[in-house]
Amino acid sequence: MFDLLIQTALCDGARKDVAIAGGRFVAIEPAGTLDATSAKEIIDGTNFLLRPPFYNTHTHHAMTLLRGAGEDLPLMAWLKERIWPQEARLTRELVAAGTRLAILESLHSGCVAFNDMYFHQPAILQAALEMGVRAQVGLMVMDQVSDHIENEAALEMRADLPPTLHLCYAPHALYTSTEAQLRAVAEHATALNLPIHIHAAETQDECAIARERFHAATPVAYLDRCGLLRPGTILAHCCHVTDDDLALMAEREVIVAHCPHSNQKLGSGVFPWEKAIKAGVKVTVGTDGAASNNSLSMIAETKAAALSAKLNASSPEAVPLAQVDRAVTQVAAAALGFPDAGEIRVGKEADCILVDLSCPLFAADNDPNADFLYAGDSACVDTVICAGRILMRHKEVPGEAEIIAAARAAARQLKGCNR
Amino acid sequence: MFDLLIQTALCDGARKDVAIAGGRFVAIEPAGTLDATSAKEIIDGTNFLLRPPFYNTHTHHAMTLLRGAGEDLPLMAWLKERIWPQEARLTRELVAAGTRLAILESLHSGCVAFNDMYFHQPAILQAALEMGVRAQVGLMVMDQVSDHIENEAALEMRADLPPTLHLCYAPHALYTSTEAQLRAVAEHATALNLPIHIHAAETQDECAIARERFHAATPVAYLDRCGLLRPGTILAHCCHVTDDDLALMAEREVIVAHCPHSNQKLGSGVFPWEKAIKAGVKVTVGTDGAASNNSLSMIAETKAAALSAKLNASSPEAVPLAQVDRAVTQVAAAALGFPDAGEIRVGKEADCILVDLSCPLFAADNDPNADFLYAGDSACVDTVICAGRILMRHKEVPGEAEIIAAARAAARQLKGCNR
Repeated sequence: MFDLLIQTALCDGARKDVAIAGGRFVAIEPAGTLDATSAKEIIDGTNFLLRPPFYNTHTHHAMTLLRGAGEDLPLMAWLKERIWPQEARLTRELVAAGTRLAILESLHSGCVAFNDMYFHQPAILQAALEMGVRAQVGLMVMDQVSDHIENEAALEMRADLPPTLHLCYAPHALYTSTEAQLRAVAEHATALNLPIHIHAAETQDECAIARERFHAATPVAYLDRCGLLRPGTILAHCCHVTDDDLALMAEREVIVAHCPHSNQKLGSGVFPWEKAIKAGVKVTVGTDGAASNNSLSMIAETKAAALSAKLNASSPEAVPLAQVDRAVTQVAAAALGFPDAGEIRVGKEADCILVDLSCPLFAADNDPNADFLYAGDSACVDTVICAGRILMRHKEVPGEAEIIAAARAAARQLKGCNR
Repeated sequence: MFDLLIQTALCDGARKDVAIAGGRFVAIEPAGTLDATSAKEIIDGTNFLLRPPFYNTHTHHAMTLLRGAGEDLPLMAWLKERIWPQEARLTRELVAAGTRLAILESLHSGCVAFNDMYFHQPAILQAALEMGVRAQVGLMVMDQVSDHIENEAALEMRADLPPTLHLCYAPHALYTSTEAQLRAVAEHATALNLPIHIHAAETQDECAIARERFHAATPVAYLDRCGLLRPGTILAHCCHVTDDDLALMAEREVIVAHCPHSNQKLGSGVFPWEKAIKAGVKVTVGTDGAASNNSLSMIAETKAAALSAKLNASSPEAVPLAQVDRAVTQVAAAALGFPDAGEIRVGKEADCILVDLSCPLFAADNDPNADFLYAGDSACVDTVICAGRILMRHKEVPGEAEIIAAARAAARQLKGCNR
């Protein structure tokens, strides 16, 4: 008995029938060989590429409400003049509205999971739950801010969360906490068995603070001293990492969330992906928030990540396509605590997308995965399935118009408009 | 009498009625003020951002048929093993099929013009004419190739070309011609009053050839010695330009076609846009061919160009949005020989696009142009108008399915398949 049977889709270079039951892939066979009579629902995959979805490993999802709020500004002016005044008005309702919008946009570009570091965490969990996506939501630590951080409320929800939702500790960055605070995070994370997610080595300024305020060689060395570099810790950005840092990161089994668009837009620097591979460091890709990207498309971010790696290594051979593809699927799924997702294989959790091969960009048919990752956009993502549930069908997400209208109203409220 | 009246569209920050007649904008007034009774056709612009389209200043359009043909390969292996064997099979029909596909993709991302350097030029002109877009098509000079170059046939068509189609001279690059050939191009271009389009300073290898084979300081210096740097000459790439080069380029009034994705993917280098602005050099953006990008989306390329400039200058303030926007519209239109296009202003040629503001990415409504350029994709481009003609309406281009089917068959033929 199949809950869903996808027939004759192009998958890993061949036409296949793929069956889903109980939220997992239960049978994958050559096209035309799986019995359709016992399937509750059938999707004709003839015109589609069936592939794993994306898993976005660094986000501030509700910042969709702040998209475009301060183009071309230096970081501190952007924060002080545009971002912080609006964020002061945040509520659970507004965060939920912004997060739902971000999830909607993410589904349109084929992404089913996010790793969020933002305020009013119960609202983030609620939005992810409602929309059926996977998420890892961070308990924040940030010296300057306390009003909108709801770590206790999020922890109270922990026991009731479905397997698609996790918590982690997300101290903001080394420059927004004391050393004592970061050491305490490491202890709490150990005690509660929660992973860690933190901005690291994003800018030259951060490197200077690591040296001058904390007398550490580098941000990575300092975070290790605080006990934060543990198996599974996600370090976002890592533009400024030395060879020693990379060796240490490999030894500690931490994972990089490479955020190329944000790093480029803010002029921060470039994560050296090819060097990281040689050092044995695991790499994934994140969009960062919509206020500093400004897109949440993981298709676009994946291309930017791969191309920035090739440029950084001065070689078209650096970080080949198959490795890029694994980084944004299997490796990223495991990084977010879903080691059984990210691959279309019998026994794995049933996350997948159907990509419309009738779009012009697939006409040459030399390498459909390359076509999708390097020339695709949301217009070719037709259907998104997460844990066996269809979250988007023929480019439509249930409640889409309402989600957009609510986000529009929320953005107006953040700007201080009354309606 | 208006041929077309677009009512109540968001244009330059306000709601406006925009009227088109005889291929030009004839009236632009506050929403609700233009008389609709005399309009042959009306578009309700309420849900739309009305803005100028893109003009792509460096393309090899028919290479859509070779998209994905050789990922992750070094340049010479890519050319010898994947590209040249297929290009040997080119015919006018195949080039027309590939060019139509490229134009289709370009329309979907809001682009109405291209500057092509490719074989069987009469087929390129024919495809552009049929699909109603603007183009500048290059008469090629390339030592190793002669079979597929049809400069004479293209020149014979010159007198009959409509004002939307131009010819130029497009010698391939300094390393595929002798100095005598390039000097001859400069003479012919002067005699025929045609502009010039050439790859320049793309790679370190090219710089070495300029020095070693031609005893010139730089590729730009060498091209100047050959007489190719003239007002309006388009230099594609320019990753490796010195301060002296930039000063010379400004003095000669040449225009750069910045192709960031291709330069990144091949590991070639980065055009220093911010430095070029300070030197007074005009800059536009091109996608390069689909075989080395792999996208033809000018939305994606514009974002990549702007962000690479910010990273290259280590500053979020570098190359601000308004300048980026002008580079890919007015400046690029003029660079392709359409100085009266690229702006929505009374008297200008009526090129414009309608962008769907109901897409999720526009919900925050802080800066719709930033939303479009930095977070948009083809899914939000609804309607494309070129010289007053509607070329795409509600995301549909006439004959779309046939164009894709013909391109699919053409790509199979290039691969040596019989059907």
